[in-house]
Amino acid sequence: MGEDWLDKVKWDESGLVPAIAQETSTNKVLTLAWMNRESLAKTVATGEAHYWSRSRMRLWKKGEQSGHVQKVREVRLDCDEDVVLLKVEQGGGIACHTGRHSCFFQKLENGRWVTVEPVIKDPKEIYGR
Amino acid sequence: MGEDWLDKVKWDESGLVPAIAQETSTNKVLTLAWMNRESLAKTVATGEAHYWSRSRMRLWKKGEQSGHVQKVREVRLDCDEDVVLLKVEQGGGIACHTGRHSCFFQKLENGRWVTVEPVIKDPKEIYGR
Repeated sequence: MGEDWLDKVKWDESGLVPAIAQETSTNKVLTLAWMNRESLAKTVATGEAHYWSRSRMRLWKKGEQSGHVQKVREVRLDCDEDVVLLKVEQGGGIACHTGRHSCFFQKLENGRWVTVEPVIKDPKEIYGR
Repeated sequence: MGEDWLDKVKWDESGLVPAIAQETSTNKVLTLAWMNRESLAKTVATGEAHYWSRSRMRLWKKGEQSGHVQKVREVRLDCDEDVVLLKVEQGGGIACHTGRHSCFFQKLENGRWVTVEPVIKDPKEIYGR
Protein backbone atom coordinates (compact mmCIF):
# COMPACT_ATOMS: atom_id res chain seq x y z
CA MET A 1 0.00 0.00 0.00
CA GLY A 2 1.09 3.58 -0.69
CA GLU A 3 2.00 6.22 1.85
CA ASP A 4 -0.78 8.73 1.20
CA TRP A 5 -2.34 7.82 4.54
CA LEU A 6 0.91 8.79 6.30
CA ASP A 7 1.00 12.10 4.42
CA LYS A 8 -2.45 12.90 5.75
CA VAL A 9 -1.18 13.01 9.33
CA LYS A 10 -0.21 16.51 10.46
CA TRP A 11 3.11 15.88 12.16
CA ASP A 12 4.19 18.71 14.47
CA GLU A 13 7.36 20.79 14.08
CA SER A 14 9.32 17.87 15.63
CA GLY A 15 7.70 15.39 13.26
CA LEU A 16 5.56 13.87 16.02
CA VAL A 17 1.94 13.31 17.01
CA PRO A 18 0.52 12.07 20.32
CA ALA A 19 -0.83 8.51 20.18
CA ILE A 20 -3.37 7.28 22.74
CA ALA A 21 -3.58 3.54 23.40
CA GLN A 22 -6.97 2.27 24.55
CA GLU A 23 -7.55 -1.34 25.57
CA THR A 24 -10.16 -3.12 23.45
CA SER A 25 -11.38 -5.47 26.19
CA THR A 26 -11.79 -2.93 29.00
CA ASN A 27 -11.95 0.38 27.08
CA LYS A 28 -9.41 1.75 29.55
CA VAL A 29 -7.00 4.41 28.35
CA LEU A 30 -3.61 2.82 28.97
CA THR A 31 -0.94 5.20 27.70
CA LEU A 32 -0.15 8.27 25.71
CA ALA A 33 3.11 8.11 23.81
CA TRP A 34 4.54 9.88 20.77
CA MET A 35 4.87 8.70 17.19
CA ASN A 36 6.84 9.87 14.23
CA ARG A 37 6.15 8.78 10.67
CA GLU A 38 8.39 5.73 10.93
CA SER A 39 6.81 4.50 14.16
CA LEU A 40 3.28 4.78 12.78
CA ALA A 41 4.32 3.02 9.56
CA LYS A 42 5.97 0.24 11.57
CA THR A 43 2.96 -0.05 13.90
CA VAL A 44 0.65 -0.61 10.96
CA ALA A 45 3.06 -2.91 9.09
CA THR A 46 3.66 -5.18 12.11
CA GLY A 47 0.39 -4.84 14.02
CA GLU A 48 2.39 -4.00 17.15
CA ALA A 49 2.66 -0.52 18.66
CA HIS A 50 5.91 1.35 17.99
CA TYR A 51 6.58 4.80 19.38
CA TRP A 52 9.20 7.52 19.32
CA SER A 53 10.99 8.11 22.59
CA ARG A 54 11.56 11.85 23.01
CA SER A 55 13.97 11.30 25.92
CA ARG A 56 16.07 8.61 24.22
CA MET A 57 15.54 10.07 20.75
CA ARG A 58 14.86 6.72 19.17
CA LEU A 59 12.17 4.41 17.83
CA TRP A 60 11.00 1.87 20.37
CA LYS A 61 8.66 -1.06 20.21
CA LYS A 62 6.31 -1.07 23.18
CA GLY A 63 7.27 -4.12 25.22
CA GLU A 64 10.71 -4.56 23.69
CA GLN A 65 12.19 -4.88 27.20
CA SER A 66 9.17 -5.85 29.30
CA GLY A 67 7.55 -8.20 26.81
CA HIS A 68 4.32 -6.23 27.29
CA VAL A 69 3.64 -5.76 23.61
CA GLN A 70 0.53 -3.90 22.38
CA LYS A 71 -1.27 -5.75 19.59
CA VAL A 72 -3.02 -3.13 17.50
CA ARG A 73 -6.59 -3.91 16.46
CA GLU A 74 -7.59 -0.51 15.12
CA VAL A 75 -5.98 2.81 14.22
CA ARG A 76 -7.92 6.06 14.27
CA LEU A 77 -7.11 9.67 13.45
CA ASP A 78 -8.87 12.73 14.86
CA CYS A 79 -10.64 15.56 13.04
CA ASP A 80 -7.53 17.78 13.00
CA GLU A 81 -5.41 14.85 11.84
CA ASP A 82 -2.82 15.47 14.53
CA VAL A 83 -3.72 12.81 17.13
CA VAL A 84 -3.75 9.02 16.71
CA LEU A 85 -5.88 6.60 18.72
CA LEU A 86 -4.87 2.94 18.85
CA LYS A 87 -7.22 0.20 20.04
CA VAL A 88 -4.93 -2.45 21.47
CA GLU A 89 -4.69 -5.71 23.33
CA GLN A 90 -2.19 -5.13 26.11
CA GLY A 91 0.29 -7.99 26.59
CA GLY A 92 0.60 -9.08 30.22
CA GLY A 93 -2.21 -6.69 31.13
CA ILE A 94 0.49 -4.20 32.10
CA ALA A 95 0.99 -1.01 30.08
CA CYS A 96 2.89 1.08 32.65
CA HIS A 97 6.58 0.91 33.47
CA THR A 98 5.56 1.04 37.16
CA GLY A 99 3.98 -2.41 36.74
CA ARG A 100 0.42 -1.10 36.69
CA HIS A 101 -2.34 -1.84 34.20
CA SER A 102 -2.65 1.75 33.01
CA CYS A 103 -0.35 4.77 33.23
CA PHE A 104 -3.26 6.90 34.47
CA PHE A 105 -3.23 5.61 38.05
CA GLN A 106 -3.15 8.99 39.82
CA LYS A 107 -6.57 10.45 40.55
CA LEU A 108 -7.23 13.96 41.78
CA GLU A 109 -9.06 13.83 45.12
CA ASN A 110 -9.58 17.01 47.15
CA GLY A 111 -6.50 18.72 45.78
CA ARG A 112 -4.20 15.70 45.94
CA TRP A 113 -3.09 13.12 43.39
CA VAL A 114 -3.92 9.74 44.92
CA THR A 115 -2.64 6.44 43.52
CA VAL A 116 -5.74 4.37 42.90
CA GLU A 117 -4.40 1.37 40.95
CA PRO A 118 -2.26 -1.46 42.28
CA VAL A 119 1.13 -2.59 41.05
CA ILE A 120 0.46 -5.90 39.31
CA LYS A 121 4.11 -6.85 38.93
CA ASP A 122 7.21 -5.36 40.52
CA PRO A 123 9.16 -3.39 37.87
CA LYS A 124 12.34 -5.07 39.15
CA GLU A 125 10.87 -8.36 38.02
CA ILE A 126 9.67 -6.93 34.72
CA TYR A 127 12.94 -5.30 33.73
CA GLY A 128 15.28 -7.64 35.60
CA ARG A 129 17.06 -4.81 37.36
CA MET B 1 -7.18 24.08 48.37
CA GLY B 2 -3.49 24.80 47.65
CA GLU B 3 -1.77 24.54 44.29
CA ASP B 4 0.70 21.75 45.06
CA TRP B 5 -1.29 19.44 42.79
CA LEU B 6 -0.79 21.88 39.90
CA ASP B 7 2.94 22.05 40.61
CA LYS B 8 3.13 18.27 40.27
CA VAL B 9 2.15 18.44 36.59
CA LYS B 10 5.15 18.54 34.26
CA TRP B 11 4.16 21.30 31.86
CA ASP B 12 6.15 21.27 28.60
CA GLU B 13 8.38 24.10 27.37
CA SER B 14 5.23 25.92 26.18
CA GLY B 15 3.53 25.40 29.55
CA LEU B 16 1.13 22.79 28.16
CA VAL B 17 0.15 19.15 28.57
CA PRO B 18 -2.14 17.02 26.40
CA ALA B 19 -5.53 16.27 27.97
CA ILE B 20 -7.60 13.30 26.82
CA ALA B 21 -11.37 13.43 27.36
CA GLN B 22 -13.06 10.06 27.77
CA GLU B 23 -16.83 9.70 28.06
CA THR B 24 -17.95 8.08 31.31
CA SER B 25 -21.10 6.47 29.91
CA THR B 26 -19.60 4.91 26.76
CA ASN B 27 -15.86 4.85 27.60
CA LYS B 28 -15.23 6.37 24.18
CA VAL B 29 -12.23 8.63 23.72
CA LEU B 30 -13.81 11.88 22.55
CA THR B 31 -11.05 14.45 22.16
CA LEU B 32 -7.47 15.36 22.84
CA ALA B 33 -6.87 19.02 23.56
CA TRP B 34 -4.19 21.02 25.35
CA MET B 35 -4.17 22.51 28.82
CA ASN B 36 -2.03 25.07 30.53
CA ARG B 37 -1.96 25.58 34.28
CA GLU B 38 -4.83 28.05 34.21
CA SER B 39 -7.10 25.80 32.15
CA LEU B 40 -6.54 22.81 34.44
CA ALA B 41 -7.15 24.96 37.51
CA LYS B 42 -10.34 26.34 35.97
CA THR B 43 -11.49 22.85 34.92
CA VAL B 44 -11.18 21.58 38.47
CA ALA B 45 -12.67 24.71 40.05
CA THR B 46 -15.74 24.74 37.78
CA GLY B 47 -16.16 21.04 37.00
CA GLU B 48 -16.28 21.91 33.29
CA ALA B 49 -13.45 21.26 30.84
CA HIS B 50 -11.34 24.27 29.89
CA TYR B 51 -8.46 24.03 27.42
CA TRP B 52 -5.77 26.17 25.86
CA SER B 53 -6.17 26.84 22.16
CA ARG B 54 -2.73 26.73 20.54
CA SER B 55 -4.07 28.27 17.31
CA ARG B 56 -6.01 31.11 18.96
CA MET B 57 -3.53 31.41 21.84
CA ARG B 58 -6.25 31.69 24.45
CA LEU B 59 -8.12 29.83 27.15
CA TRP B 60 -11.38 28.34 25.98
CA LYS B 61 -14.20 26.57 27.71
CA LYS B 62 -15.25 23.49 25.76
CA GLY B 63 -18.75 24.23 24.50
CA GLU B 64 -18.54 28.00 24.91
CA GLN B 65 -19.88 28.43 21.37
CA SER B 66 -21.57 25.09 20.70
CA GLY B 67 -23.10 24.60 24.14
CA HIS B 68 -21.52 21.14 24.15
CA VAL B 69 -19.94 21.47 27.57
CA GLN B 70 -17.91 18.63 29.12
CA LYS B 71 -18.87 17.99 32.76
CA VAL B 72 -15.79 16.57 34.44
CA ARG B 73 -16.34 13.59 36.74
CA GLU B 74 -12.74 12.55 37.30
CA VAL B 75 -9.25 13.89 36.63
CA ARG B 76 -6.26 11.58 36.27
CA LEU B 77 -2.54 12.09 35.72
CA ASP B 78 -0.17 9.61 34.12
CA CYS B 79 3.03 8.06 35.52
CA ASP B 80 5.26 10.71 33.92
CA GLU B 81 2.93 13.45 35.14
CA ASP B 82 2.78 15.06 31.72
CA VAL B 83 -0.59 13.83 30.41
CA VAL B 84 -4.06 14.44 31.89
CA LEU B 85 -7.08 12.16 31.44
CA LEU B 86 -10.55 13.59 32.05
CA LYS B 87 -13.62 11.39 32.52
CA VAL B 88 -16.48 13.51 31.26
CA GLU B 89 -20.15 13.65 30.45
CA GLN B 90 -20.39 15.15 26.98
CA GLY B 91 -23.12 17.75 26.57
CA GLY B 92 -25.30 17.16 23.52
CA GLY B 93 -23.45 13.90 22.88
CA ILE B 94 -21.27 15.84 20.44
CA ALA B 95 -17.59 16.45 21.19
CA CYS B 96 -16.35 17.22 17.68
CA HIS B 97 -16.61 20.50 15.81
CA THR B 98 -17.70 18.46 12.76
CA GLY B 99 -20.90 17.56 14.64
CA ARG B 100 -19.80 14.02 15.43
CA HIS B 101 -19.84 12.22 18.77
CA SER B 102 -16.06 11.77 18.91
CA CYS B 103 -13.17 13.46 17.11
CA PHE B 104 -11.66 10.06 16.30
CA PHE B 105 -14.00 9.24 13.43
CA GLN B 106 -11.39 8.35 10.83
CA LYS B 107 -10.37 4.70 10.82
CA LEU B 108 -7.45 3.23 8.90
CA GLU B 109 -8.70 0.55 6.51
CA ASN B 110 -6.37 -0.95 3.91
CA GLY B 111 -4.18 2.11 3.68
CA ARG B 112 -7.01 4.65 3.68
CA TRP B 113 -8.60 6.81 6.37
CA VAL B 114 -12.30 6.05 6.24
CA THR B 115 -14.94 8.13 8.05
CA VAL B 116 -16.84 5.64 10.20
CA GLU B 117 -19.00 7.88 12.39
CA PRO B 118 -22.01 9.92 11.32
CA VAL B 119 -22.55 13.65 11.69
CA ILE B 120 -25.17 13.97 14.43
CA LYS B 121 -25.80 17.67 13.89
CA ASP B 122 -24.75 19.94 11.05
CA PRO B 123 -21.98 22.28 12.25
CA LYS B 124 -23.85 25.17 10.57
CA GLU B 125 -26.67 24.53 13.01
CA ILE B 126 -24.31 24.16 15.96
CA TYR B 127 -22.32 27.31 15.33
CA GLY B 128 -25.02 29.30 13.55
CA ARG B 129 -22.79 30.12 10.60
